[in-house]
Amino acid sequence: MLMAQQSAAAPQLEGYSRAASDAERGWEEKFRAVPEPDRVKENMRRLSARPHHVGSPYDKDNAEWMVQQFKSWGWDAEIENFYVLFPTPKDRLVELVEPTKFTAGLKEPVVAEDPTSNQADEQLPTYNAYSGDGDVTGRLVYVNYGTREDYEELDRLGISVKGAVVIARYGGAWRGIKPKVAAEHGAVGCLIYSDPGNDGYGVAESFPKGAGRPKDGVQRGSVNDTAFPGDPLTPGVGATKDAKRIDIKDTPIITKIPVIPISYADATPLLAQITGRIAPAKWRGQLPITYHIGPGAAKVHMRMFSNWDIKPLYNVVAKLHGTDAAGEWVIRGNHHDAWVNGADDPISGISAELEEARALGEISKQGWKPRRTIVYCAWDGEEPGTLGSTEFVETHVKELKEHAVMYLNSDSNGRGYLWMEGSHGLEHFINGVAKEIADPETGLKAYERTRLATILEAKGSERAEARAGGDLHIGALGDGSDYVAFQDYAGVPSLDLGFGGEGRGSEYHSIYDDFYWYSHFSDTKFVYGKALAQTAGTAVMRMADAELLPYNFRNTAETIATYVTELKDLLKTEQDEAEELNKQIDEGVFAATVDPEEPIAAPERKAMPPFVNFAPLENGARDLKESAAAYEAAVEAAQANGGAVLDTPGVAAINAVLIRTEKAYLSEAGLPDRPWFKHQLYAPGAYTGYGVKTLPAVRESIEQYKWANAEKAAVEIGKLLEDEVAVLKEATEKLKGLAAGK
Amino acid sequence: MLMAQQSAAAPQLEGYSRAASDAERGWEEKFRAVPEPDRVKENMRRLSARPHHVGSPYDKDNAEWMVQQFKSWGWDAEIENFYVLFPTPKDRLVELVEPTKFTAGLKEPVVAEDPTSNQADEQLPTYNAYSGDGDVTGRLVYVNYGTREDYEELDRLGISVKGAVVIARYGGAWRGIKPKVAAEHGAVGCLIYSDPGNDGYGVAESFPKGAGRPKDGVQRGSVNDTAFPGDPLTPGVGATKDAKRIDIKDTPIITKIPVIPISYADATPLLAQITGRIAPAKWRGQLPITYHIGPGAAKVHMRMFSNWDIKPLYNVVAKLHGTDAAGEWVIRGNHHDAWVNGADDPISGISAELEEARALGEISKQGWKPRRTIVYCAWDGEEPGTLGSTEFVETHVKELKEHAVMYLNSDSNGRGYLWMEGSHGLEHFINGVAKEIADPETGLKAYERTRLATILEAKGSERAEARAGGDLHIGALGDGSDYVAFQDYAGVPSLDLGFGGEGRGSEYHSIYDDFYWYSHFSDTKFVYGKALAQTAGTAVMRMADAELLPYNFRNTAETIATYVTELKDLLKTEQDEAEELNKQIDEGVFAATVDPEEPIAAPERKAMPPFVNFAPLENGARDLKESAAAYEAAVEAAQANGGAVLDTPGVAAINAVLIRTEKAYLSEAGLPDRPWFKHQLYAPGAYTGYGVKTLPAVRESIEQYKWANAEKAAVEIGKLLEDEVAVLKEATEKLKGLAAGK
Repeated sequence: MLMAQQSAAAPQLEGYSRAASDAERGWEEKFRAVPEPDRVKENMRRLSARPHHVGSPYDKDNAEWMVQQFKSWGWDAEIENFYVLFPTPKDRLVELVEPTKFTAGLKEPVVAEDPTSNQADEQLPTYNAYSGDGDVTGRLVYVNYGTREDYEELDRLGISVKGAVVIARYGGAWRGIKPKVAAEHGAVGCLIYSDPGNDGYGVAESFPKGAGRPKDGVQRGSVNDTAFPGDPLTPGVGATKDAKRIDIKDTPIITKIPVIPISYADATPLLAQITGRIAPAKWRGQLPITYHIGPGAAKVHMRMFSNWDIKPLYNVVAKLHGTDAAGEWVIRGNHHDAWVNGADDPISGISAELEEARALGEISKQGWKPRRTIVYCAWDGEEPGTLGSTEFVETHVKELKEHAVMYLNSDSNGRGYLWMEGSHGLEHFINGVAKEIADPETGLKAYERTRLATILEAKGSERAEARAGGDLHIGALGDGSDYVAFQDYAGVPSLDLGFGGEGRGSEYHSIYDDFYWYSHFSDTKFVYGKALAQTAGTAVMRMADAELLPYNFRNTAETIATYVTELKDLLKTEQDEAEELNKQIDEGVFAATVDPEEPIAAPERKAMPPFVNFAPLENGARDLKESAAAYEAAVEAAQANGGAVLDTPGVAAINAVLIRTEKAYLSEAGLPDRPWFKHQLYAPGAYTGYGVKTLPAVRESIEQYKWANAEKAAVEIGKLLEDEVAVLKEATEKLKGLAAGK
Repeated sequence: MLMAQQSAAAPQLEGYSRAASDAERGWEEKFRAVPEPDRVKENMRRLSARPHHVGSPYDKDNAEWMVQQFKSWGWDAEIENFYVLFPTPKDRLVELVEPTKFTAGLKEPVVAEDPTSNQADEQLPTYNAYSGDGDVTGRLVYVNYGTREDYEELDRLGISVKGAVVIARYGGAWRGIKPKVAAEHGAVGCLIYSDPGNDGYGVAESFPKGAGRPKDGVQRGSVNDTAFPGDPLTPGVGATKDAKRIDIKDTPIITKIPVIPISYADATPLLAQITGRIAPAKWRGQLPITYHIGPGAAKVHMRMFSNWDIKPLYNVVAKLHGTDAAGEWVIRGNHHDAWVNGADDPISGISAELEEARALGEISKQGWKPRRTIVYCAWDGEEPGTLGSTEFVETHVKELKEHAVMYLNSDSNGRGYLWMEGSHGLEHFINGVAKEIADPETGLKAYERTRLATILEAKGSERAEARAGGDLHIGALGDGSDYVAFQDYAGVPSLDLGFGGEGRGSEYHSIYDDFYWYSHFSDTKFVYGKALAQTAGTAVMRMADAELLPYNFRNTAETIATYVTELKDLLKTEQDEAEELNKQIDEGVFAATVDPEEPIAAPERKAMPPFVNFAPLENGARDLKESAAAYEAAVEAAQANGGAVLDTPGVAAINAVLIRTEKAYLSEAGLPDRPWFKHQLYAPGAYTGYGVKTLPAVRESIEQYKWANAEKAAVEIGKLLEDEVAVLKEATEKLKGLAAGK
């Protein structure tokens, strides 16, 4: 009885009548009492017991086991298959041929303490998926992280990678950018190594003594081009058995040059033999050598050939059917495939998702029924390029656009702070959820712990906002997990959640990312697995049960206004920098400051960036703010006095309009040069990979000095913003009508 | 004839009549044509041929040779001896006793290519002079650079060094600060090692392949307390044979705990055995280990005992006697003692000074006679603690205050940019000199090259000023070479000059700082040695020959105004930070952001800094600006129309007043807690060592939260500024009188 009183005293949830809100709070509390750390742990032990990459026996076995689990908890579950191009190594060789001989081992040894590290028969060798085939020899050049900025520095140093094999360290940008930019500059091959300064002894003792990557540990990973995600042979189309496929020769996804990832034990003998210019201070890692750039004494021969096979994907799709609004879907997902055993990536996430699903099944047995249909997914093929989720979205895009109200993703999970990214229409919503979750280490609410950390780390207005206690800002989504197709292709409002930020070292994408490592060095008590299950499950329930979809457009409008300001600042900065640079060239600054023993050329003169018409964006952002405020007022009015009006059939028509809000941001033509990416607010950067670019068509055009594109995109996005305003006004009018009893 | 015409067209030098200016320019050009790189080189070869530390046979031999050289060039030269406490190692031991055994080699091996590296009989062993004697054993704790900030971090991590032996890396602060702060925190011993990330393979290939410190290379150096410079037994008194000495037990100069410097070859086995907390990211060096802080498994035994002998110093003092103003002295100095062979430190500087002296002798033979007396010094005992120059100044302080118009110092010299620090009354003067000197690498004037580098590197107003082409700002002098006593004890306007900033790696204070190293990796053509001789010699001549001393007080006034603004900003920052910190403690920010596996305590609450009365400083700075402008106007008037009035006997009385200008900044009481330091504008920081603190009595009081001291000092310095104003007004009136023919 006491609990019921507390619930009644709690604020009315947005999108809920008082009665529905009280009921919801009661069920959410019941739900959060169910997840158990030990069950999360046992899920991990089972799912990571053997290597389970795409096409492996245990990948399928895991999928089938999960289907059975879902069914045992009362879910309607099945496997949906796709068939995708997934290369595996046929021939790998890296050898130093000059000035001395050395052949890289390309092998991660068994660690005695670690019981799954010896499953060599099932382990994928160390490689980068979608590397082009090739057998090449060239002088070795060290290119730091291998980003475009690094090549600008090389240009100034007078160093060309034409005909060379480059070696880049992991970090600084998504790995697929490294061979892409290397090939653009004429390199014939690319090695990527893990510097101990980034995830080895520089940050933690080497495994198994500590959590750090050991000397022979290698980061596998895909290097697919960022033209589109998903199966390389079926862009924009579901990779079903009979789908029309493009020829492998025609896909832009495969790198132009061979790429092989190596350990620092393999990299050190190569790097130590490079002569020529010493690397700039920022380029140096933590190996006990002097980092030289080359090209010089070191010559490398590398060979990389793949088996270019089509492999089946096993997506698990499980449903809890809705009641009054069964035609609206709340989708939750986490991938289940790994590069090897993948206890951290992705099993820490999917283990929590399964525990969540069990808990939802549990309260269903107690009488709870979701208003909307809940769809729980375990994706296959995320590692090579979000294959499973992308093919699912491409296959069902039409229905998703009509029915899906939210996609909620997670992936690796660890100790620390709740971390939230996503569509800003869900920012206020997910902040509300974060206020319900107890952080296992401090007992604070997850929202509060992150808020206090923001006060500590942020500066200026961001600190002041955190101090004022408003919504924590969520970052926009780029790439890196299975939300990409949902958000960028189908316009489904999406979120990505997880805990992390504590602990040191990483065995990312190596054979040591396994149960032994995770249970010794990460969320060893599995309490953050439980917390993730509580967070995601609460979000799913709250979205599923709301009478009116709890979207909030004020945060989106404010965020877009911020982006527009950023773009104006970006252009101003580009103009100022170009002016200053050209002035310095004229003054002879660069000629005067050259050390003749280490010559460096002046940067190239820059064309002065013109002014760009930002008015369409500014008008759109302002109009959006106004209509978001009007909609918010209408929601408040509808919720007043118990909000019984929300519990009437008329609300369905309003929800139908609300589902269209995110779609207004889609453009059928997609981004310039990347037509697959439809969303005009968010996209992964063409040259950052994982990193997001907001208002990408304008931002990247400015960054790339494509002024006509920037002008055009500003006008087009301005129009999309006005379209959004129109949809919002329609929703507002309908809601006012409902409240007025019309 | 053509040359004469060019000279005539050149602007009239400040402090000169037109006729004197033209003559001066002619002689300066003749002077600058004399110095030869090969002679600088041969000076270095001779002076660095054997180890020549204080008390060694070759130290005396060098001094005697230099006296002969000066004499052969027509100078009046002699040796002035002092007798100082100079400890040398009797017993050194560093051994790991737990968990494994390891005994440090404490030895720099012979390098076959390097012909002087084998002079073991004459080399001083690796040690830190003025280490306290002791035989101690303790758990080993890594303290990063061993600064006060590092111990604040240790406090928050809950790590005490009480009873421990600490190991700090070189860098971050002057070495003497490390044992001082360690002892303040209860440590029983201190090791200091050279991390390869700072001057070893992290920046250059190891010697002899490159210029970088090799694995066994050690940085010797003094760790004397900063209470006062010079002989530890004769503070404030010249250390003549019969000087009254304090007891060795009573000098504050010797460290409270034993200190030994070690190589990274000796440090690695020790560091690798430390367990406990992993060091924060900023604390990690470039050794191939995980840096732990401890205390943990590693226990160290160290023993350090010195022979506490009195050794003779051999200062070389050479004079070219002046004519009309023989009673005014222009003093030039560079030390000649080294830790071992010291080709870079200090022979690169003294070799140039000798070539300068030869060139001045050369033009004397051609008829040039300096108006003032020129005094060229080669100091002994700089390395242990500016012993030779300090004892000289203490002995002659009364005459120096009356007669010395400038002290110009140099020390190590290399390739790159002209670098100028000093008293701001000489800022405008030395900028004028820098405009005469050709940079050997670019052919630009040294002023111009540094100006363009400032445009490249500076931001905001500093960039704009450099662009406008005004005087380059010179930094204030802290500690680190022989200007300290001249400026801080005697109030002689001082400058420190040198070229540098190019080249990589360093053999600083090791046996490898020798002719082989310097002639392979530094100013290998000795053209910057020639440039230093041209720069310093031109400055000496221009100061010696001016009719009116070319001091400019506008730069000083502007610089002091800047310092006052800095102090106000500093207090504001302290207040803001205290407010923010206390707020965060109240909000529970620190408790919320603790990782329970790596706990860290909240910082301690800070008392709110009160407002301080800066008005006396502000009034003083403003008044000084006004009177500096008035004086400048008077100079311009006197110089107008050929300025023949400057060439009259009456100018001597004005110069006598000008000599008093810098003395106005001295306070007999000295700084709070450091009475030896008399100058109230500049001092080395009590906890930075080399680093300068400007308006130190106020600045350090604010930094140390000693508010009453800050208030008191602001009033006192305000008074000194008004005293300076009075002296300036006197000079201005006298100059006006002279111009008016009174």
